[in-house]
Amino acid sequence: MIIYNPKDWLHAVFSFHRSETIKKLYPFLFFMAIYSWAIAFFEIEYLKLSEQSWLRNIPSMHSLLGFVLSILLVFRTNTAYDRWWEGRKLWGQLTNTSRNLALRIESLLPINDKVNRSFYKKSIPLFANTLRDHLQSSRTRFMLDEKDHPAFAQLDDSKHGPNQVAAMLFKRTNILYKEGIISGDQFILLNNELLAFADICGACERIKNTPIPFTYTSFIKKFISVYVLTLPYGFVFSLGYFVVPAVVFAFYVLTSLEMIAEEIEDPFGSDLNDLPLSKMANNIHKHVGELIH
Amino acid sequence: MIIYNPKDWLHAVFSFHRSETIKKLYPFLFFMAIYSWAIAFFEIEYLKLSEQSWLRNIPSMHSLLGFVLSILLVFRTNTAYDRWWEGRKLWGQLTNTSRNLALRIESLLPINDKVNRSFYKKSIPLFANTLRDHLQSSRTRFMLDEKDHPAFAQLDDSKHGPNQVAAMLFKRTNILYKEGIISGDQFILLNNELLAFADICGACERIKNTPIPFTYTSFIKKFISVYVLTLPYGFVFSLGYFVVPAVVFAFYVLTSLEMIAEEIEDPFGSDLNDLPLSKMANNIHKHVGELIH
Amino acid sequence: MIIYNPKDWLHAVFSFHRSETIKKLYPFLFFMAIYSWAIAFFEIEYLKLSEQSWLRNIPSMHSLLGFVLSILLVFRTNTAYDRWWEGRKLWGQLTNTSRNLALRIESLLPINDKVNRSFYKKSIPLFANTLRDHLQSSRTRFMLDEKDHPAFAQLDDSKHGPNQVAAMLFKRTNILYKEGIISGDQFILLNNELLAFADICGACERIKNTPIPFTYTSFIKKFISVYVLTLPYGFVFSLGYFVVPAVVFAFYVLTSLEMIAEEIEDPFGSDLNDLPLSKMANNIHKHVGELIH
Amino acid sequence: MIIYNPKDWLHAVFSFHRSETIKKLYPFLFFMAIYSWAIAFFEIEYLKLSEQSWLRNIPSMHSLLGFVLSILLVFRTNTAYDRWWEGRKLWGQLTNTSRNLALRIESLLPINDKVNRSFYKKSIPLFANTLRDHLQSSRTRFMLDEKDHPAFAQLDDSKHGPNQVAAMLFKRTNILYKEGIISGDQFILLNNELLAFADICGACERIKNTPIPFTYTSFIKKFISVYVLTLPYGFVFSLGYFVVPAVVFAFYVLTSLEMIAEEIEDPFGSDLNDLPLSKMANNIHKHVGELIH
Amino acid sequence: MIIYNPKDWLHAVFSFHRSETIKKLYPFLFFMAIYSWAIAFFEIEYLKLSEQSWLRNIPSMHSLLGFVLSILLVFRTNTAYDRWWEGRKLWGQLTNTSRNLALRIESLLPINDKVNRSFYKKSIPLFANTLRDHLQSSRTRFMLDEKDHPAFAQLDDSKHGPNQVAAMLFKRTNILYKEGIISGDQFILLNNELLAFADICGACERIKNTPIPFTYTSFIKKFISVYVLTLPYGFVFSLGYFVVPAVVFAFYVLTSLEMIAEEIEDPFGSDLNDLPLSKMANNIHKHVGELIH
Repeated sequence: MIIYNPKDWLHAVFSFHRSETIKKLYPFLFFMAIYSWAIAFFEIEYLKLSEQSWLRNIPSMHSLLGFVLSILLVFRTNTAYDRWWEGRKLWGQLTNTSRNLALRIESLLPINDKVNRSFYKKSIPLFANTLRDHLQSSRTRFMLDEKDHPAFAQLDDSKHGPNQVAAMLFKRTNILYKEGIISGDQFILLNNELLAFADICGACERIKNTPIPFTYTSFIKKFISVYVLTLPYGFVFSLGYFVVPAVVFAFYVLTSLEMIAEEIEDPFGSDLNDLPLSKMANNIHKHVGELIH
Repeated sequence: MIIYNPKDWLHAVFSFHRSETIKKLYPFLFFMAIYSWAIAFFEIEYLKLSEQSWLRNIPSMHSLLGFVLSILLVFRTNTAYDRWWEGRKLWGQLTNTSRNLALRIESLLPINDKVNRSFYKKSIPLFANTLRDHLQSSRTRFMLDEKDHPAFAQLDDSKHGPNQVAAMLFKRTNILYKEGIISGDQFILLNNELLAFADICGACERIKNTPIPFTYTSFIKKFISVYVLTLPYGFVFSLGYFVVPAVVFAFYVLTSLEMIAEEIEDPFGSDLNDLPLSKMANNIHKHVGELIH
Repeated sequence: MIIYNPKDWLHAVFSFHRSETIKKLYPFLFFMAIYSWAIAFFEIEYLKLSEQSWLRNIPSMHSLLGFVLSILLVFRTNTAYDRWWEGRKLWGQLTNTSRNLALRIESLLPINDKVNRSFYKKSIPLFANTLRDHLQSSRTRFMLDEKDHPAFAQLDDSKHGPNQVAAMLFKRTNILYKEGIISGDQFILLNNELLAFADICGACERIKNTPIPFTYTSFIKKFISVYVLTLPYGFVFSLGYFVVPAVVFAFYVLTSLEMIAEEIEDPFGSDLNDLPLSKMANNIHKHVGELIH
Repeated sequence: MIIYNPKDWLHAVFSFHRSETIKKLYPFLFFMAIYSWAIAFFEIEYLKLSEQSWLRNIPSMHSLLGFVLSILLVFRTNTAYDRWWEGRKLWGQLTNTSRNLALRIESLLPINDKVNRSFYKKSIPLFANTLRDHLQSSRTRFMLDEKDHPAFAQLDDSKHGPNQVAAMLFKRTNILYKEGIISGDQFILLNNELLAFADICGACERIKNTPIPFTYTSFIKKFISVYVLTLPYGFVFSLGYFVVPAVVFAFYVLTSLEMIAEEIEDPFGSDLNDLPLSKMANNIHKHVGELIH
Repeated sequence: MIIYNPKDWLHAVFSFHRSETIKKLYPFLFFMAIYSWAIAFFEIEYLKLSEQSWLRNIPSMHSLLGFVLSILLVFRTNTAYDRWWEGRKLWGQLTNTSRNLALRIESLLPINDKVNRSFYKKSIPLFANTLRDHLQSSRTRFMLDEKDHPAFAQLDDSKHGPNQVAAMLFKRTNILYKEGIISGDQFILLNNELLAFADICGACERIKNTPIPFTYTSFIKKFISVYVLTLPYGFVFSLGYFVVPAVVFAFYVLTSLEMIAEEIEDPFGSDLNDLPLSKMANNIHKHVGELIH
C-alpha cells in the first residue's frame, strides 16, 4: 500500500510509473489509437461519406447509453471500494482483538507464569500470520468454485490453518479456567476475544472466495467493449482525426474505472493497492510483544 | 457459483455459452432485430416520411426519460446485489458459528464423553443441511403469499426443519448444564452460538420469502418494455437501417440489468450465480469433523 | 403481499388489474391526455406559432431540470424501500425472538409445569398480535402529530397494548427466577429476548408514526406537478399530436415513482404491497405451538 | 412535526401557507423574477443581440455543470435526511430504554418499596426532559466551536444536565445492589439500560454540535448562487421573456433542495419539520407512569 | 471546526477569507483564466477557424464524459464525508465511554478511596489526550507505508502511547477486582468500557493510516486535469471570449469537489474543517472531573 499526500496533485497526475492501471493499459491505448485512426482514415478519405450518412447519428445512441454505463461503473467502483474497506476494517479489528487479548493475558496471568505468558506471546501473532498465508493461497480463493480443482486435491488433507491456531488458543484458555488460574468472569472476557478471531477469519474468507457475480462483471465488460469499439464510427463525422485522442481518452476513463474496481475488490492480493497484510501482522507481533512481559 | 479471474477480459467478453442472461435473451434480441428492421423498412420505403415529420423528434422524449430509467436500473441491480451479499454474509456467519460451536464443544466436553461429542459432530452440520433444503423448497418461498397454495396443504403438517434441529441442540446443551457437565458461564457461551443459528435461519427466510414489492418490479418491467418498443420509431430518421443494431444493443443493455437483478436477488436458488449452498454445507461438515474428535 | 415469479415478464407487464398504482392513476392519465391534446390543438390550429416562437425552446429547461427530478425520485423510492425493508427485518426479528423464547422456555421449564408452559404458549404469540393491532390503528400513526386529535381523546385512557404484554411476560419470568425455577444465568438469557420484544415494538412505532418530513414530500409533489403540466407547451413544436402519448407516458413514469414510494414507505398499512402482518403473526403462533409442549 | 396523508397530492401541492421553505423564498423568487426580466429586456430591446452572439451559447456550460449540481444537491438532501432519521432513531431508543427500565424496576423492586419506585417514576422521564432542554440550548450547539463564546462563560459553571441525571440514576441503582434489594444479575440488566441513556445523549450531542463541514456547505451555496444568477443571460436567446418563469422555477427547485437540507439536518431545532421532542418526552412520562405503580 | 448558521447564505457565499479551498485555488484559477484566454485569442484572431473545423465538436466528448466525472466526484466527496463522520462518531464514543467509566468509578469505589479515585480522574482524560497526540503524529500516518521511513527509526523504540494508557487502566481495574473492592459483575461492566477504549483507538488509526487507494485518487486527478485543460479548445467556438469565465468556473467546481474530499477524508489533521480533537479532549477532562469526586 502506498501512503501518499492526497494534496500533492503533481505527483498524482504524473505518476505513470507507479500506477499499475495505466501501465497495463498502454498496449490497449495504443491499439485504440490505431483502430480509431484507421476508421477515421477509411471514412474520410475512401468513403467520403456525406453529411447525410446515417452513420453520422450513431453518437446519439452513445449518449443515450453513456449515462447508464457511467453510473454503472461508478457504482461498480464503490462496491469494490466497500469490499476493500471492509477488508481493512477486519484487519483493524484483528489488530484490536490481538491487543486486547494481550492486555488481558498480561494482567490476568500471575507474573511468574512464564510458560503461559510465552505461549500467548507467540500464539496471538501466529494467528495473524496464519490468516495472511491462508488468504493469499489460491486454494482459499477457489474454495467455493463449482469446478473441480485437482491441483488442490493433495492439499485437501492438510487442515485449515487459522482454525487450528484458534482451537489451540481456545483449549489453552479453557485449561487455565479449569485449573482455576482465571475465574469464570475472566474466562468470558477472554472468550469474547477468541470468538472475534474466528469471526474475522470467516469474514476475510468471504471477501476472498466470493467475487461479485460473474454475470454482473461479464455484462459490464461486454458493455464497455461494444461501447468503446463503436465509438469512432459516428464521431469521425464531428471530430475528424481528433477522434483518435478523444476515443483513446474515453477508453482510458471507462476501462480504468473497471480496472480499479478489479484491483481493489480483492484486498488480500498482492497488487500495489492491496492491504499490507505482512506489515499489519508485524505490527501485531510488535504490539503483543510490548504488552505481554 | 463461478470463481473467475476478474482481470481476464477476453474470457468475460466472449463467454456467451456460460452467461445465462444473454442465452435467455437470444430469442428476444432476434425479435427486436426483426421488429426494428420492419419499422425502418416501413417508414423509409413506404411512408417516405419527410424531415418535418413529428415522428422524427420522439427521441427527445427517450432522452428525457432515459436518465430516470438508467438510474432506476442501476439502483435495482444494487439493491439485488445487497440481498445477494447479505445472503452470503449469513452463510458465512453460519460457517463461523458452526466452527465456534465445534471449537467449544471440543474443549468443554470431557475427552471420553463419546456420546455427546458424536451428537454435536452430527447435529451441527445437520443444521446447515436442513437450512439449505428449507431455503430451496418452494414452500418456504410462498410462506407469506396472500394466495392459497393447496399443493402445500398436505406438507403443512410436517414441521419446520431448521427449528427442530435448533430445538434438539438447545435441549441437549441444557441437559449438559443440568447434569453439571458444563458450568453456567460455559452454558451462556454455548447459548449465544445456538441463538445465532436461529437468527441466521430467520434472516435467510426473510430474503427468500420477501421479494421486492410487486408494484416496483412490475413498474420497471412496464417502463423498459414501452421504452424499448417505442425506440425505433423516432431513431429511424437519424440512424436509418443502423437502427437495427442500435436498438438491439440498447435492448440488451437495459433488459440485462433487470435480468441480472432478478437472478441475484434470490441468492438461494439454483441459478448459475446463486450461492453454492451445498458446497458451503459440505465445508461446514468437513471443518466440524476436523475440530471435534 | 404478492409472491411472484420475478422472471415472468409477461405477467408483470400486463398485470394492470392487480397493480394498484396504475389503477389509481387512470383518471389522471386520461386528464393528461385531454389536457395535452387541448394544448396541441390550440397551439397548432389556432395560434399557428412559427418556428421562431420562444415557446419552442421551453424543453431546454425541462431537460436541465429533468435530471434533478429523476435522481430525486429514484432516491425517494429507495428511501421508502429502506423503510419497508427495515419493517420486514423487524418482523423477521420478532419471529426469531418468539421462536428463541419458545425454544428456551421449552427446555428450561420442568416438563410437568403445565401452568407456566401454557402461559408462555399463549403470551408469546399474543405479543405479535397486539403489535399488529397497535401498528394498524390510526392512533399510533398520529401519536406525534402537532395537531390535537379529539377523536383519540377518549382512547387515551386505555393503555399501550404491546407494553402491557411485555410487562406481563417480564413479571412472570421474574417470578420464575425468584421462585428458583430458573437460575440467574437462564434469567439473563430470557431477559435478552424480552428486551428484544420492546425494542422491536419501538422501532416499528418509529416507522409508523414518523413519515419523511412534510417539506420534502410536499416539494417533490410540487416539482412533479409543475414539471408535467408545463411539459406539453414546448414539446408540441417538436412532437405535434404525438405530444399526447409522450406526455401521458412521462406523467405515468414520474408520478408512479412517487406513488410507489408513498405506498411502500409505510409497510404496516393495508396496501397490496404492505407486509402480511396477520400471516406473520399466525406463523409465530404456529411455530410457538410446535416448540412448547 | 406534521403527520400528513402522503397520498393527498392536492394538499401537498397547494400547502404554501404551511411549508416554510417556500414562504422564506418568496422575496428571493420575486427578486429573481425582476432580475431575469431586466436582463431579458436589456438583451432583447437594447442590445438586440444577433443569433451569432457568443452569449447565446452560455447554456451549454449550464447543462455541463447542471448535472454535478443536481447530483450534489440530492446527495446533500440525503445526508441531511440521514441525520434527521438518526436523531429520530435515537429518541426512539430513548423511549424504548425508558420503557424497559420502568418495566424492570416495576418487577424487580418489592411492591411496598414506595420510595424507590417513586424515585424511578420521576427520574426516568426527567432524563428525557433534561436531554430535550440540553439539545435545544445554543450552548450545546457551540460546544465545539473554535471561537470564544463569552456569552456562555457564566453558564460554564453549571454542570451538564443529562450527565447529572444519569449519575443520579446510576448511584441509586448501585445502592439497591449494595443493599441486596437487587441481585448481581439484575444489576447487570439495569446497568445496560443506564449505559444506553448516556450513549443516546452523546449521539444526540454529536448531531447537534457537528454540522456538515463548513467548506462543503459554503461551496454548495456559492455554486448555486453563481449558477442561478448566470442562468438568464444565455437563455434569453432561446426563451425570450419566458426566461422569467423558467429561471424563477429553476431557482425555486435548486435552492429548495438546499433549504430542505438545512432545515432537517438539525433535527433538534424548532423548525416545523424538526422532531417533536416535547411530545416524545411527554409520551415517555406517560408510559413510565403506566408501568411503575 | 467552525460552527455556523447553515441558513446564513450571505456569509457562506462571501466567506472567501475563511474557506481555505478557494484560497488555495486562487493561483490556479488565475492560471486557468490566462490559459483559456490565450487559447481563445489564438483560435479566434490567428487561426480564424471556420465553422466547419473539427475542433468545434470536441465539447460533445466533454459532455459524454462530463457525466462520469461529475458522479465520480460526488461519490468521492461522500466517501470522504463518511470517513469524517466516522471519525466524529468515534470521538463521540470516546466521550461517552469516558463519561460512563467515570460514572461507574464514582459509584463503585468507596467514598474514602482517594487514591484510586484520583488515579481514574487523571487516567481517563489522559487516554483522550494520548490518542490525540498519537493521531496527529506523522509516524501514525505512515505506519503501513511500503517505503522505509528512516526518520521514524529512532522513534520505533518508543512504545504505542494509547496502548500503554489502556494497559495501565486495565491492570489497575484488575487489581481492584483481585483485592475485592469491586465484584465480578462490576468487573465485567468496567471491562466493557476499557475494551471500547482500545477499539476506538484502533478504528481511529485505521482512518488515519489508510487513505483511499492511490490508484483511485490518482485516476481522479488525471481525469480532472485532462478534462479541464482540454475544455477551452472546443468551447471557444461557441462561447468566444466568454470561454474564460466559463472554464474558470468549471475548473473551480470540479477541483473544489476533489479538494473538499482531500480535506475532510483525514478528520484528524489540522485543517480548518478537521475535528477539534483538543476541544473534545478538554471536554472529556472537564466532564470526568465533574463526575468523579
